[in-house]
Amino acid sequence: MTYDVDQIIASDAFATACASLRDGHGRFVDEIIELTQIPAPPFKEGVRAAAYAEKFRAHGLDAVEIDGIGNVLGVRRGRGNGQMICVAAHLDTVFPEGTDCTVRREGTKLFAPGVGDDTRGLAALLAYIRALDAAGIVTEQDLLFVGDVGEEGKGDLRGVRHLFTEGKYRDQIAGFFTVDGLNLDEITTAAIGSYRYRVTFRGPGGHSLMAFGLVNPAYALGQMLTGMAALRVPETPRTTFCASVFGGGTSINAIPEEVWVEVDLRSESQSALDDLDTAFRALIARAVEDENTRADTTEGAITAEIDRIGNRPAGSTAHDSRIVQAAFAALPHFGIATTTGASSTDANIPMSLGIPAIRLGSGGTGGRAHSLDEWIDVEIEESLRGLSAGLATILGTAGVAEGA
Amino acid sequence: MTYDVDQIIASDAFATACASLRDGHGRFVDEIIELTQIPAPPFKEGVRAAAYAEKFRAHGLDAVEIDGIGNVLGVRRGRGNGQMICVAAHLDTVFPEGTDCTVRREGTKLFAPGVGDDTRGLAALLAYIRALDAAGIVTEQDLLFVGDVGEEGKGDLRGVRHLFTEGKYRDQIAGFFTVDGLNLDEITTAAIGSYRYRVTFRGPGGHSLMAFGLVNPAYALGQMLTGMAALRVPETPRTTFCASVFGGGTSINAIPEEVWVEVDLRSESQSALDDLDTAFRALIARAVEDENTRADTTEGAITAEIDRIGNRPAGSTAHDSRIVQAAFAALPHFGIATTTGASSTDANIPMSLGIPAIRLGSGGTGGRAHSLDEWIDVEIEESLRGLSAGLATILGTAGVAEGA
Repeated sequence: MTYDVDQIIASDAFATACASLRDGHGRFVDEIIELTQIPAPPFKEGVRAAAYAEKFRAHGLDAVEIDGIGNVLGVRRGRGNGQMICVAAHLDTVFPEGTDCTVRREGTKLFAPGVGDDTRGLAALLAYIRALDAAGIVTEQDLLFVGDVGEEGKGDLRGVRHLFTEGKYRDQIAGFFTVDGLNLDEITTAAIGSYRYRVTFRGPGGHSLMAFGLVNPAYALGQMLTGMAALRVPETPRTTFCASVFGGGTSINAIPEEVWVEVDLRSESQSALDDLDTAFRALIARAVEDENTRADTTEGAITAEIDRIGNRPAGSTAHDSRIVQAAFAALPHFGIATTTGASSTDANIPMSLGIPAIRLGSGGTGGRAHSLDEWIDVEIEESLRGLSAGLATILGTAGVAEGA
Repeated sequence: MTYDVDQIIASDAFATACASLRDGHGRFVDEIIELTQIPAPPFKEGVRAAAYAEKFRAHGLDAVEIDGIGNVLGVRRGRGNGQMICVAAHLDTVFPEGTDCTVRREGTKLFAPGVGDDTRGLAALLAYIRALDAAGIVTEQDLLFVGDVGEEGKGDLRGVRHLFTEGKYRDQIAGFFTVDGLNLDEITTAAIGSYRYRVTFRGPGGHSLMAFGLVNPAYALGQMLTGMAALRVPETPRTTFCASVFGGGTSINAIPEEVWVEVDLRSESQSALDDLDTAFRALIARAVEDENTRADTTEGAITAEIDRIGNRPAGSTAHDSRIVQAAFAALPHFGIATTTGASSTDANIPMSLGIPAIRLGSGGTGGRAHSLDEWIDVEIEESLRGLSAGLATILGTAGVAEGA
């Protein structure tokens, strides 16, 4: 039994696994295309999930299921020490229903919405399973393979959140990989937390002339914004806020009945995020109170509705944890000089719970993610370099019990 | 022939006209409901205009037409002295497309957006025509009945402006009534001037996290609003301001490239309006400057574009003019102790051109104009009191040639 990455990579079994990745690369590409062409818009991942579950079954995973929120789960049993390492990729794309997801191929390049983010990740999981099976590798900890829902945008990480809060394996998962995006030059070891709000100020409205003197929600909004501009936030841990999208009011000669703004608060630190959140809510409360004091509330007072439309917890994974150390040890073997970074991914959830987690790319190159021009290059050598490096990192984390 | 209001009110014909108003009050109420339920959003008065033109035709008006700008015109011929008295109500409401305009009735109260402002006015014109016809009254001057477009908001009085600048009757109109709103306790003899703006703050935008620290036009907007809330304006001459409609921004995780607000400035006094305008522009300039000082302008600075989207001329009608004297003479007969006031109505245009004009309410009571809770009370005695008083004022202005 070993967690030693150098030893694992030097083993015959790992060589066999890499040979399987190479031999199966054509199939890997075919599966990227096949899965990409099954649209998975936000909150509508069901068709792709069903197809992916079918693949998990065909790959011989144990206990394959689609859980209560729509995640596809399947277990590759290890030696059975009671712990699991989760290897996940997300099913959803940012693209709305009706988007043409047909893959266009030019040489080694594949063009389609979602092809790299994160369909290549989904296909990578299948390639890993085949490689481990071909090499007869038994991991120390069980591998829980997951195709999860709701990573993008308003999905708000609901798939992985469910996995760790209500999922049946929630107490067993000792480490978490999200295989998301392509590059391995930077692994994500810090989760940027965010609260997203739509704040709506409401009042009685009225005629701009005749009702002049009544409270106007626009001035409460104004005061909140002015307060935001004066907020002090730490540079380290990086903490930010942004008033972004505005609306409200119906006519230039009417006091608006409601005005609203969407606000994004973020921090690398949960406590800094919560401090910012507290300060932000206090600004809103004072803005409402001051407008109700300033002006006439005879026809009604200003109120504020604070609707949390996004909630991603902050967190981080220690650099001396096994999962990060495995990446640091494995990636240089494949010529990858990696750095660590912070971003907002499925790994936010386990990191916020203190469960070691990183984001790892699936390899290859590409561009224009989140645009209709999204593309990846599946040129075999670069593609295999990333797949192999990822597999070595996973094995260094889950440990190899037999076959290495 | 007479312009003597006392004589007109004492006549059998006027009594017959008032009896017609009473007998037809149920129909009047039905027509308020019918017309209210035909939405007439700003710049989209066409459907209501067509229905109103049909009613003009059904009421036997001459030369019924929808003019080049969308006003509904119809002439009730008088003795034909070459002059016209225009009696107008406006077709448009402040409410946007999609607003539910269904009338809810509770006892004698009608609730619906626009029911009082100005749909009751439109229905009053029809009731007047029927009353004049029932009494066989021939006026000295032709009566030009008008359902006009663009009184509210960005309409910027374009309907009545057209009537007096390009309309075919522009040289014949010797007096102008806008039957707008309910109350007759105050007739409008002075035009409140207004400047209306769309103020757009622009900046370089950027990612809410990655570009944090760059200038954000939202905070310049906020400071302008906070400054507005603190503005001091005179109560006499009545001077008001209102921040009304908001928009801007594209995504919750992006610093907006632009945000905008529409603002209404008004005063009875041109000099007070100009003072307010100066103060308002100074607020904008300082808000821009302060945001550019507060935050990073490396990627670009905040700018403000001040787009004047409304400019309504001030003006007044002399109290010794026949139209005002007719109101002063007529209203007390109906127990209405009237005063004169200033507001911003379709009458701004003729007043600014030196053509005698007043705003007259259509009677009844109500409240919450320009809000979704708008209502009127059509209790018959109060309702008839206003209608009859208005008709007497119109007849005292247009003169009665026969039938009185």
